[in-house]
Amino acid sequence: MSPDDRLAAQFAFLNEADRLKSVLRATTLCDGSRAENSGEHSWHLALYALTLADQAEPGVDINRVIRMLLLHDLVEIDVGDVPIHSMGGTAHASTATQEAESRAADRIFGLLPPDLARDFRALWDEFEAAQTPDARFAKSLDRVQPVMANLQSGGGTWITYNVTLDQLDTRVGEKISRGAPRLWDWVRAQARHFFA
Amino acid sequence: MSPDDRLAAQFAFLNEADRLKSVLRATTLCDGSRAENSGEHSWHLALYALTLADQAEPGVDINRVIRMLLLHDLVEIDVGDVPIHSMGGTAHASTATQEAESRAADRIFGLLPPDLARDFRALWDEFEAAQTPDARFAKSLDRVQPVMANLQSGGGTWITYNVTLDQLDTRVGEKISRGAPRLWDWVRAQARHFFA
Repeated sequence: MSPDDRLAAQFAFLNEADRLKSVLRATTLCDGSRAENSGEHSWHLALYALTLADQAEPGVDINRVIRMLLLHDLVEIDVGDVPIHSMGGTAHASTATQEAESRAADRIFGLLPPDLARDFRALWDEFEAAQTPDARFAKSLDRVQPVMANLQSGGGTWITYNVTLDQLDTRVGEKISRGAPRLWDWVRAQARHFFA
Repeated sequence: MSPDDRLAAQFAFLNEADRLKSVLRATTLCDGSRAENSGEHSWHLALYALTLADQAEPGVDINRVIRMLLLHDLVEIDVGDVPIHSMGGTAHASTATQEAESRAADRIFGLLPPDLARDFRALWDEFEAAQTPDARFAKSLDRVQPVMANLQSGGGTWITYNVTLDQLDTRVGEKISRGAPRLWDWVRAQARHFFA
C-alpha cells in the first residue's frame, strides 16, 4: 500500500465516521432540548474516562479506555442505537443486534489500512466482550452517562420507557458496579430521589 | 475534600461540559445537512488523532494529543466558536478572544477538584500555546478536519467566507504544516481541485 493509498484509506474511514453524528439516541442532552447523537455521546464518554479515572480499578489503562470509547459506537452508523430500556430491556443484548453490529464492524473498520483495521477491531471486540478491566470500566461509563443526562433533564428515557428503580438496578446498576462499584453507589444515591 | 464532594465536583464539570453539544460551528457535517457542534467535532478530532497517529513527528505522545483534543473547545461554552475564516481571518487570534477564552477556562476547569483542574488547564494552555510537538500535532488535526468537511460538503465555509486558495494556504496550510507536513501535502492536493 503506497503512502498516498494509505492516507486515502485513513480518510475514507474518517469521512465515513462523520455519519455517527447523525445517529440519534433515546437519551436527550442534559437540558432536554433535543436527542443526543452518538458522536457527541462518544466525546462525552471519553471526557468521563479522563475525569473519573480515579474510579477505575487498579491496573486499568485510561488511555486504552478512551480509545475504546472513541470507537465503541461506530457500528451504529449501520445498525442505529438500540436503547438499553427498549423492548423491556431485552433488545440491546439480542443475537440479531449483535450479529448486525459485527457485520457493521467488518464494513466500517474494513475501510482502514489493514494494521489499523486489526487494532481498532480488536479494541471494539474487547469492549463488546466486557471481560477485561479496561472494557468493564469503559462499559460502566457508557451506563453512567445516560443516568446523569436523565437526572439533569427530569427523567428522560426513564419516563419514555416507564422504568422502575428495580429495573435501573438490574439493567444499569449491575453493569456499572462491575467496573466502578463506588461510582454506582454515588450515582444511585442521586437517582433514588427521582424514583421516590 | 471528601470522596463524595470530589465526585460531586467531577460531575458538576461533566454536566457543564454537556453544553458544548449546543455550540454550533461554521462548518457543516460532511453531508451538509446541518452545522457541526463543538462536542461531536471534538470526538471526530480525537478519532483523527487515533487514525492519523503515523503522521505525527517522532516523539509525539498520541494519548496526550487525544486528551488535548477532548478538552480544547470547552471554553466555547462561554465564548462560542470563532470561525477561522471570519473577519478576514483575524477574529480567531484577537486579544479579546484570547482573554475571553482564558476567563472561560478559569470558570469551567475551576468546577473540577483542584488536582484535575490544574492538569486539564495545563493541557489546554499547552494546546493554545502550540509550542510543543504534541500541541502542534493537535492543532494540525484541528485545521485538517474542517478542510475534509468542506471538501465532502461541496465547499462549506470556503463559500460562506469567499476563501481563496492563497488564504487557505496562509490561514490553514501553514498551521497544518507545522505539525504534520506530509498530511498537508496530501490534503492540499485534494483541496486544490475545488479552487481550480
